[in-house]
Amino acid sequence: MNSDYKKLDQIFHPRSIAIIGASNRPGNAAVVFLKAHAVLNFAGPLYAIAPNGDQVPDFPTFKNVNHVPGPVDHAVIAVPAAYLLEVLSDCVRKKVNSVVIFTSGFSESGDPEGMEKERLIRAKARESGIRMIGPNCMGIYYPHNGMSFRPDLPPVEGPGEISYLSQSGGMAFGAVFLGNRFGLKYNKVVSFGNEVDLGGPELLDYFAEDPETKVILAYLEGTRDGRSLGRALIRAGARKPLVVLKGGLTETGVRAAASHTGALGGSRATWESVFRQAGAIQVDTVDELVGAALVLRRLPKFTGRKMVIITISGGLSVNFTDRAGFWGFEVPELAAETCQKLKRSFDIPGTSVKNPIDMAAAFMMFPIYPDVFRALDEDPETDLIFLVISIEFLAYIESFMPGITDNSMNAFLGAIKEVKKPLVVVLPSVIGEELRLRAEQLFVKAGFAVFESVDRAMKVLNLVRRYHQRSKRKE
Amino acid sequence: MNSDYKKLDQIFHPRSIAIIGASNRPGNAAVVFLKAHAVLNFAGPLYAIAPNGDQVPDFPTFKNVNHVPGPVDHAVIAVPAAYLLEVLSDCVRKKVNSVVIFTSGFSESGDPEGMEKERLIRAKARESGIRMIGPNCMGIYYPHNGMSFRPDLPPVEGPGEISYLSQSGGMAFGAVFLGNRFGLKYNKVVSFGNEVDLGGPELLDYFAEDPETKVILAYLEGTRDGRSLGRALIRAGARKPLVVLKGGLTETGVRAAASHTGALGGSRATWESVFRQAGAIQVDTVDELVGAALVLRRLPKFTGRKMVIITISGGLSVNFTDRAGFWGFEVPELAAETCQKLKRSFDIPGTSVKNPIDMAAAFMMFPIYPDVFRALDEDPETDLIFLVISIEFLAYIESFMPGITDNSMNAFLGAIKEVKKPLVVVLPSVIGEELRLRAEQLFVKAGFAVFESVDRAMKVLNLVRRYHQRSKRKE
Repeated sequence: MNSDYKKLDQIFHPRSIAIIGASNRPGNAAVVFLKAHAVLNFAGPLYAIAPNGDQVPDFPTFKNVNHVPGPVDHAVIAVPAAYLLEVLSDCVRKKVNSVVIFTSGFSESGDPEGMEKERLIRAKARESGIRMIGPNCMGIYYPHNGMSFRPDLPPVEGPGEISYLSQSGGMAFGAVFLGNRFGLKYNKVVSFGNEVDLGGPELLDYFAEDPETKVILAYLEGTRDGRSLGRALIRAGARKPLVVLKGGLTETGVRAAASHTGALGGSRATWESVFRQAGAIQVDTVDELVGAALVLRRLPKFTGRKMVIITISGGLSVNFTDRAGFWGFEVPELAAETCQKLKRSFDIPGTSVKNPIDMAAAFMMFPIYPDVFRALDEDPETDLIFLVISIEFLAYIESFMPGITDNSMNAFLGAIKEVKKPLVVVLPSVIGEELRLRAEQLFVKAGFAVFESVDRAMKVLNLVRRYHQRSKRKE
Repeated sequence: MNSDYKKLDQIFHPRSIAIIGASNRPGNAAVVFLKAHAVLNFAGPLYAIAPNGDQVPDFPTFKNVNHVPGPVDHAVIAVPAAYLLEVLSDCVRKKVNSVVIFTSGFSESGDPEGMEKERLIRAKARESGIRMIGPNCMGIYYPHNGMSFRPDLPPVEGPGEISYLSQSGGMAFGAVFLGNRFGLKYNKVVSFGNEVDLGGPELLDYFAEDPETKVILAYLEGTRDGRSLGRALIRAGARKPLVVLKGGLTETGVRAAASHTGALGGSRATWESVFRQAGAIQVDTVDELVGAALVLRRLPKFTGRKMVIITISGGLSVNFTDRAGFWGFEVPELAAETCQKLKRSFDIPGTSVKNPIDMAAAFMMFPIYPDVFRALDEDPETDLIFLVISIEFLAYIESFMPGITDNSMNAFLGAIKEVKKPLVVVLPSVIGEELRLRAEQLFVKAGFAVFESVDRAMKVLNLVRRYHQRSKRKE
């Protein structure tokens, strides 16, 4: 591990943290940061710095970071833009190693004054050596070490596995919430905004080296140094699975990005060429970002296109088969032996043992589930299993057989747990959201990749399939 | 109105209905049909026909339809395939005008015996003049007249406005549930399965003429008479907005459709050429089918591509702008005057009054909402408003300001109610599903087109925009 890695790693392991800009005004941002760290049990001292002299309940409070008796390794700064340079000078004097600058109103504003202020902040970083994340950012979420930027961000059991750099705060916590719901375990998430100092290139190199990080996610809007970012993307992609969402691909998207983080966009062709060289998985939405991470972590590697679709409604299965074709998959006939096995399990009117498999009324026959999934798992003609459970089919039965949905879900779970082939579970959102969300969490907790849209699941599966194909070719 | 119309219209207005195949066995399908009609208050007598001599509680029960003392205009048949012909002869003797045949096990099974049985049913229809829907179908949902095929299908206030023919039962009730959730008011839904007699062509002609039907939806897998279906599609499309979902577009999809309803597929190119000639809106999924109907009914006609996007998170708005570009929209700069007006409403750090508009922290300033939406409505540079409310932004604030989400939603609702431009509301599903679903229902009940996915909303908007463009060109 090189020295750059160790220096950045310090930022994620401070002995103590000061949050600057606290006051007793309701909704004060610094207090939100304080609570966010406290909720996740940050182990070291947490200091509130309240320049106006307020006393923040539950936290040792000082007027200036230099009044803190012990060392301060890291600070989060949430003061008005006008006071930022002064506060940075205070931090330098206190020998703070790194700061997150939440304050906004710089290059993203587009006005010359903001640009100039940002230039001064950058100069301060260069001259003092203090490491800066931001400005105009949410900073660090590293639940394993109790660092966070919103009190409602979830704890994660163990060190997690996914690290994520995001130029946008909204894109950062959006993906954290969504990922948490679907069982992704985040290691480190960094919202880095206008990147006056640390940004895309440094974070990519760090995550590429970081042993806790198994998959890297990135939301990028632009950069001031395209060459370094491009090289870092290629280095990171060579070492770990890298999933990239680019904000600002269209002309107006670029304009929007400029007024969001002040980043320079670059052309779509340039970006996409870099992503290709990096072997990155390029996605279009935050749901796909999370979905790709899920498929990478929850499914064994797969390169085959041959999908078996299993549903409890024929009409839906026809449509899903078309969608599979659209997203690059085949839905081939199963081996004759597999059809025989399925027929032994269920052969009643309305069902189909041909791919796509329509269990129809046979979904009520829970004891056959293990045989059905064993047959599909052993089928030599198919590479992956796409299970769609349309919960709305159970809604009415539930009304006179309460518990049927949970029983059916538990039966599915028991059967698919034994499957070795790549498998995803899709629970389309139609009606009965309460039952659906409970089923979703059942499969999520058991470690399956769960989706709520057939199209999204297939799109993401195909992106990851192509990634594994590229990786295999390189081996 | 021609005589064909009147004859088909009789099917939807029977004086009395017999449901044949009832028994006291739990889960008996005929009893489910009986309850479905009873729940929606079918006005005439409902007879249970129990060939095994059982007495069905709550319904006058007979062993044979010919034992019913009064007339029987319509019957739903749910007997095993082996008894079907005999039961049909009973119905002919009773002078039943129309039957829905729920029974399956015919051409969709692929075996010669099933094919032959289906041929005999068809011959019976020809020879007797009795009108048949099915076999292998769910039949009719016409809540305005108390006809239904599942006891949990919702009532609809008034006659409704959307009619839907579906070759698949699952695709029929899937769209009914989903549509009901999003505020679509169905008039008539017919699941018609193997179409031995009445099918695509007849239903399309009927809905085209039917004054209660404002928009026609169709899920088609195939047909035995491509020429009539094609002509009927073109006739229907010339009279009313027509949204089509084709099951079996890919090679395997066609195979799946054949084993589902025994329909002959035809080539994708042929189908798509007919859809084009019909001026139909072709969609890819059931969500899009419902979404297109929503946009057709809830938004004024629009042909412009210029979209204003308004969000409460900058990072998301950059991504949404890219997606708008992908789906054929422009996100242009607003008129200078509009920006001035918006600046008067909110001009605080982190917000952007440029398109895409990022309300950021200004979303807490409820009193400005009406001015903001009035400015967007009056903006001369844009054609439609795309409002994305990311409920996850409110989740934390909700924890210390309970009620903030509802207050914010009510403020949005009050402001957008006055908007005359086409407007959609998107509530992406991330976390806080309970709050999100409550907000969804608030906007749905107020008559707005609501989506839970930005991509789906934009795809559907563009499909409908192009439909209006084609219609305008024809005028």
